[in-house]
Amino acid sequence: MPLKVVQPVPLPKGTDEYEAKIKAILDDFAAKVPDSLVLPESITSNPPKDVTSVPRDCGLLAAEELDITEKYDAVGLAEAIASKKLTAVAVATAFAKRAIIAHQVTCCLTEWFMDEALERAKFLDDYLEKNGKTIGPLHGVPISVKEHQALAGHYTSFGWLDTRTLDKEDAQMVRIFRNAGAVFYVKTTQPQGIMHLEGVSQYGRTLNPYNINLSSGGSTAGEAALIAMRGSVLGIGTDIGGSIRGPSGFCGIYGFKPTSYYLPMKDFLVGGFGAELNVLCSTGPMCNTMRDMDLFVKVIKDANPHIEDPRLVPIPWKGLSAATPKTPLKIGIMWHDGNIIPQPPVTRALEWAVSKLTQIPGVEVKNFAPFQTKRGMDNIRKAYWPDGGAAVKAHLAATGEPMFPLTQWIIKDAEGGDIGSAGVLAQRVERDNFRIEYSAHWAAQDVDVLLCPMFIGPACEHDTSFYWNYTAFFNYVDHPGVVFPTPVKALAKGAEDYRPENATPISEEDKHVRKLWAKGDFEGAPIDLQMVARKYYDNELFSALAQVKEALGLP
Amino acid sequence: MPLKVVQPVPLPKGTDEYEAKIKAILDDFAAKVPDSLVLPESITSNPPKDVTSVPRDCGLLAAEELDITEKYDAVGLAEAIASKKLTAVAVATAFAKRAIIAHQVTCCLTEWFMDEALERAKFLDDYLEKNGKTIGPLHGVPISVKEHQALAGHYTSFGWLDTRTLDKEDAQMVRIFRNAGAVFYVKTTQPQGIMHLEGVSQYGRTLNPYNINLSSGGSTAGEAALIAMRGSVLGIGTDIGGSIRGPSGFCGIYGFKPTSYYLPMKDFLVGGFGAELNVLCSTGPMCNTMRDMDLFVKVIKDANPHIEDPRLVPIPWKGLSAATPKTPLKIGIMWHDGNIIPQPPVTRALEWAVSKLTQIPGVEVKNFAPFQTKRGMDNIRKAYWPDGGAAVKAHLAATGEPMFPLTQWIIKDAEGGDIGSAGVLAQRVERDNFRIEYSAHWAAQDVDVLLCPMFIGPACEHDTSFYWNYTAFFNYVDHPGVVFPTPVKALAKGAEDYRPENATPISEEDKHVRKLWAKGDFEGAPIDLQMVARKYYDNELFSALAQVKEALGLP
Repeated sequence: MPLKVVQPVPLPKGTDEYEAKIKAILDDFAAKVPDSLVLPESITSNPPKDVTSVPRDCGLLAAEELDITEKYDAVGLAEAIASKKLTAVAVATAFAKRAIIAHQVTCCLTEWFMDEALERAKFLDDYLEKNGKTIGPLHGVPISVKEHQALAGHYTSFGWLDTRTLDKEDAQMVRIFRNAGAVFYVKTTQPQGIMHLEGVSQYGRTLNPYNINLSSGGSTAGEAALIAMRGSVLGIGTDIGGSIRGPSGFCGIYGFKPTSYYLPMKDFLVGGFGAELNVLCSTGPMCNTMRDMDLFVKVIKDANPHIEDPRLVPIPWKGLSAATPKTPLKIGIMWHDGNIIPQPPVTRALEWAVSKLTQIPGVEVKNFAPFQTKRGMDNIRKAYWPDGGAAVKAHLAATGEPMFPLTQWIIKDAEGGDIGSAGVLAQRVERDNFRIEYSAHWAAQDVDVLLCPMFIGPACEHDTSFYWNYTAFFNYVDHPGVVFPTPVKALAKGAEDYRPENATPISEEDKHVRKLWAKGDFEGAPIDLQMVARKYYDNELFSALAQVKEALGLP
Repeated sequence: MPLKVVQPVPLPKGTDEYEAKIKAILDDFAAKVPDSLVLPESITSNPPKDVTSVPRDCGLLAAEELDITEKYDAVGLAEAIASKKLTAVAVATAFAKRAIIAHQVTCCLTEWFMDEALERAKFLDDYLEKNGKTIGPLHGVPISVKEHQALAGHYTSFGWLDTRTLDKEDAQMVRIFRNAGAVFYVKTTQPQGIMHLEGVSQYGRTLNPYNINLSSGGSTAGEAALIAMRGSVLGIGTDIGGSIRGPSGFCGIYGFKPTSYYLPMKDFLVGGFGAELNVLCSTGPMCNTMRDMDLFVKVIKDANPHIEDPRLVPIPWKGLSAATPKTPLKIGIMWHDGNIIPQPPVTRALEWAVSKLTQIPGVEVKNFAPFQTKRGMDNIRKAYWPDGGAAVKAHLAATGEPMFPLTQWIIKDAEGGDIGSAGVLAQRVERDNFRIEYSAHWAAQDVDVLLCPMFIGPACEHDTSFYWNYTAFFNYVDHPGVVFPTPVKALAKGAEDYRPENATPISEEDKHVRKLWAKGDFEGAPIDLQMVARKYYDNELFSALAQVKEALGLP
């Protein structure tokens, strides 16, 4: 029998054969979970709207386990294990237990394997004892892995049931982390086709821990929910339209989408993905502190991944420790993208940020004009599906999988025939022209970095993540971006509204977004903001973040 | 009436209408050439096989003009003009005169505009006089420009008559050079579609100055012939299959194909080129000295071209001055590619190089095993034409232009229908897999740089540049490569043959190449070799070259 997992909104159903296969997968999952870690029916049948306190309140975790999962980030865990303050086994136990609790209230996992994690942790503890030194910089640090990223001995899928396969080998980045001492214990959810900004998959719908009536965001849905629940400190995301930044922002954590080919995607999209013909995917960290993002990138770059994957651009990582303040540091503020004015809490978060930034000596804050958002978004929506959606439909047909509403939404502008090689070329030329024009626009605005919304509002209600503007635009121009938490949270329904100067909708999409705002209850949703730098300015982005960190009170 | 230009092998003819248009273009060209610079009929009707001494022997150049064109490289000219040892006007005069002489025996120009060059040179001389300093690092240095590279006020074509247009603005790189003080005076030939390793265009066939029965190489055909004739010191090439390295090697000069997107291609292929969907073109210098390659790259990189064209990877240029010797420097020698054993003079040049390299302290010379050349070459030949050649045929039909034999040769493996977006994706996945496999192979061979042939033999006879193996392979894997001159030249016909260990052909292609060897007279053709480094290791490639420069006696 499947494990009971909170699910406020049902999923569309597939054929009987398909549903039977899904049930078998969920039964296998449940069989590995001991009764001692199953939440009381009282919680899963009647969950609070905000489930972040469930791990603490449910009574299934010991005090030390709560401490380990709540008081450390990845850097802190690595230090504590290296100094023998904590054992890798204790850490793996705490995170594995907390992860399966998190899953029951957010549906964030596709696999859970505590036994394997403990075996690995035991090996690492023994190694440290015997050798007097760690095996690597991540010795004993638990890392959570998104479903499509190959982890030896576990299942990968590319968001369709027909693509689910058992992997024999780690993907390159997973292997780098393993060699650095990481402990793996879960794989995490992603949506159908890995192409929603939510986490609605065959296995269930991933919920926002702060308000389960809202989405966790996607596609790296499970990571965001799990990390916000503190069932993980560090996860691996991928982002071709906002899939790191969206869920990170929805769940109030950090997410970093580097410039494409800065970090290794090798083995993450086996067989290729048509969207990548004109929009490259990127991979990066999701976590709770800025220094954990830094650690993630540093460990990978120190392994010289470009030797194995020559697509990678070997620009060295300088990291936070080498960050040098720039005077003046010019920060552009884009209040809205000219197409959709963000919902009120986002504007409030920007106001908060500006109030802090303007107090930093040497920082120059100026408004940044949006640039042709609609053209960019129309282009990227078509570029995602050069085959007109043919591959999507073939994947569905292969197993009788139902097309989820957001899948229909994302392919609809591209539906029709294959655009052919001339069409792919035309999209490429238009993309490059757009990037060149945007670069000139950026230069004319005269800023080092851009601060802007990461979404049109707080975390959205389920099945309503229609507008990818604030993230996908930066995939289209391939700029690196970090989303970071702010102290702002969405208030109770009706407690705030659009500013008077934003009273008039500026587009049809904006009108639609205001309807979603009027209808929704976003209470408790965290608000992240996004900082963006020029293409390949990943180091400069982190330097700027380091420079504003203290003023923004960033962890 | 067209200017008389030596043409040992006739061109295929197009429709009457097409031929009339070509004649009009050639008439316009001739109208600008004063009688005083027309070579005696005795030379153009009965040219020597080696025409390199024509500029000296023809009597049209003054002693100072011979000195200026023969005794300086670009760095030397910049220094001499800056120090007022030479005027920009004297330099422009000498190179413009020598260029039009070179054209009459090699057919290397598509435009010649001495008047404009002199006006610009006069302005620069006045500027220096008035301001006491140069306008930039290329103050007064003549630079020759390939036909498809936009130069304001001149004609660009993409290798088809129907694409010929008058440009209003400079391409980005041309503008950078202009701002640095360069003087433009010619545009140079390229073949039909810019896709032969020879220079057979609508306007004529570019000849090898050392043996006019051989090709100059292509596609940057005119630059190579012109620079070898010392009618230019520095030219701009482009290379998607060998188009910088091939002609440079055929004509005994330097050519550098950087990693793709290292230097700006913006405005060079307006409207896009289907081949670039899976094989990126690259641009770089062609010249007579190593320090001129360095100067070329330095001037461009100092202009931060990635701000205007964000496709560019902003890896800084360190250049020769910052080159640091590596100990040991491991140089792999690839004697042949496993598919075609190079013709005897190339093997002799490799033997010469090895004999020199093994004498350098700290340099480790080892054999490098070839890697799946045939697979790579089959792939790239298909990747060049994802539309099955449809665009080629449309360009020809538009003006009644004839399909040249080498155009037929290069498209034949791809002819058929459009491969569609799924086909483009399949080629991309295969390309990336190939690159990853090649990178592993390279790592296993444990070398820093690779030394290998740059062609299957010396400069080929006209219309026989069938095998692009030794250059296109490195476009397919996108490694940077430099070809450099050696003291080796092809001997008189019959004077040498394949080494005994190479007596047996290793493929059908190899058999064909041996037939071409037996039939041809390659006497006097220079032999370049090629040094290659990993993708993005452009700086490391130059460091290695600097380390072996003295032992190889490189200018």
